[in-house]
Amino acid sequence: MHNPDQSQDVTAGEVLAPYLHARAADFLRGLRLHGESGSDTAGAEEAARTLRAAARRIGATLHTFRPLLDGPWADDLRTELAWLSGTLAVEQACTSRLVRLVDALSRLSNGGGPVPAARGSESAGLSVGAARAGALLERQLTLARTRAHSAALQALGSARFHAVADAVALLASEVPLGPASAAPAAEVLDASAGVAERRLLDAVAALPLTRAAHPYNAEALALAAGEAQDAPWHQTRLLLRLHRYATEALYAGGEPDAVLYEAARALDRHRDAAEAASAAATAARTPRIAPATAYALGVLHADQRHEVEAARFAFQRAWRRTTAPVP
Amino acid sequence: MHNPDQSQDVTAGEVLAPYLHARAADFLRGLRLHGESGSDTAGAEEAARTLRAAARRIGATLHTFRPLLDGPWADDLRTELAWLSGTLAVEQACTSRLVRLVDALSRLSNGGGPVPAARGSESAGLSVGAARAGALLERQLTLARTRAHSAALQALGSARFHAVADAVALLASEVPLGPASAAPAAEVLDASAGVAERRLLDAVAALPLTRAAHPYNAEALALAAGEAQDAPWHQTRLLLRLHRYATEALYAGGEPDAVLYEAARALDRHRDAAEAASAAATAARTPRIAPATAYALGVLHADQRHEVEAARFAFQRAWRRTTAPVP
Repeated sequence: MHNPDQSQDVTAGEVLAPYLHARAADFLRGLRLHGESGSDTAGAEEAARTLRAAARRIGATLHTFRPLLDGPWADDLRTELAWLSGTLAVEQACTSRLVRLVDALSRLSNGGGPVPAARGSESAGLSVGAARAGALLERQLTLARTRAHSAALQALGSARFHAVADAVALLASEVPLGPASAAPAAEVLDASAGVAERRLLDAVAALPLTRAAHPYNAEALALAAGEAQDAPWHQTRLLLRLHRYATEALYAGGEPDAVLYEAARALDRHRDAAEAASAAATAARTPRIAPATAYALGVLHADQRHEVEAARFAFQRAWRRTTAPVP
Repeated sequence: MHNPDQSQDVTAGEVLAPYLHARAADFLRGLRLHGESGSDTAGAEEAARTLRAAARRIGATLHTFRPLLDGPWADDLRTELAWLSGTLAVEQACTSRLVRLVDALSRLSNGGGPVPAARGSESAGLSVGAARAGALLERQLTLARTRAHSAALQALGSARFHAVADAVALLASEVPLGPASAAPAAEVLDASAGVAERRLLDAVAALPLTRAAHPYNAEALALAAGEAQDAPWHQTRLLLRLHRYATEALYAGGEPDAVLYEAARALDRHRDAAEAASAAATAARTPRIAPATAYALGVLHADQRHEVEAARFAFQRAWRRTTAPVP
């Protein structure tokens, strides 16, 4: 973890502060973009993405390097940033979930409904099922997205948000460091980053990677166990993110680790597929839907759980490359 | 393909005849078992299995080595044996399809219905869906099995069957060879077996094996294309069987090829999963089923198509070992 550029003379604070300044500046840029976006949807999305990316990195840094910072301040700001990025994330999540499900429905039905071509009017009835399932999902997820959009707008206009923005604006010029930040960077930063890495390694070690490496193990299709079996993977996703941002803070300007990024993408896909499967299951619980609609939603649910399993396979493959000796 | 034990003095007829005698004797043993089984279900199943295995091998031999046999006789007997083994196969297929689907439902629902644990009464409603789907499949497949059982009994009591049995009884002592059977075995048997092998290799070469080797390619889940995309795999399964039986006839008493057997098992599994998926889709077209039942059947359908894809993956892996140099 040792950065050869860091001489013993550099303090931890001298490494952390510029990183936090830069992320705070990103945040303020996102805020400006938001102010300028008006009714421009693409601009508003870009603003939200920028705000979220900066909020996630600041929050992660406050978490990982807390021993070097003013602790109570770090805890408060981190809580507020988590609230903000969580609130801003929902709208985008609804959009991408809908895109994922509609794409899957179209792949599954291959232009002809999510069942093998059947005879006569039955076939027509089942194509209708796929179309209706798509319409139902669109209705439900569009409604959820509209609500999320209102909630995000409301959050961005709230006093709570203005307090966060003020705190981040201060952070752009001054970081409330703790006494430990005066210690040599190579010593204390590596120790904190090491804790984050250790947590990640422990979480990965607890995952059923051997099983995931065996293609078509059908584990993710044990649907009743769905949420419970997904949790350790979701947790690993968060720990991997903390580890990646800690590395980013330590080696500002360094090349990002492509394999770690690939592993992170696999866990993102795992989360997205798990939530899409859940959305299909929720839609199937809508009262008074036609059996053909329910059938198409069942196919879709299993398909997305299949994607969950595929993402686990992809993760273990990427992860093995992070620890394997470079060929 | 050359058997070192076959000297140039041995004629093709001298190799083929003992093999056909032995298979005909197997057939007659199956017939005796059937006569003795009475109301013993396990005995009757054993008898049907023996009859079918012998009928398949005799039919395959008549097909592959037709140039060495009395052609019109071979064609007639082969047609009759195909009718018989086809008729006897349906009952067993219904049983194993039901077992496969009920096992899959139980794996999917993992004790709690084929959907993630939901809240309150909704969860109960969906568990009921899985249970109802199981009951519906059981009803439909048990009915189909009962019909197949009657059809098999009727076939075994028919004049048509008695004519087949007589022809096979003759075959146990005398094989109607053609003039070419007097040629050296190493020459003409290898030529006929080579044709069977060539057909298999051509069929495998036309399969999308590269895609199948990529786990989680989701190809088998393009449900509307289901039957069309399965056909070349089913055809390969039949050609692989012809090839295996031809090898068996040529090298009687030799070790069976374990890797080819594994490849054949993968194609059996491919066929079974494809037919189980189809049975789930058929059940979902039952009028007036509850949405929860239809949903569970949709999950089951996608799960079995996932199994189809897994079987393709297993086949390409086994097949690559048949052609790869031994390590």
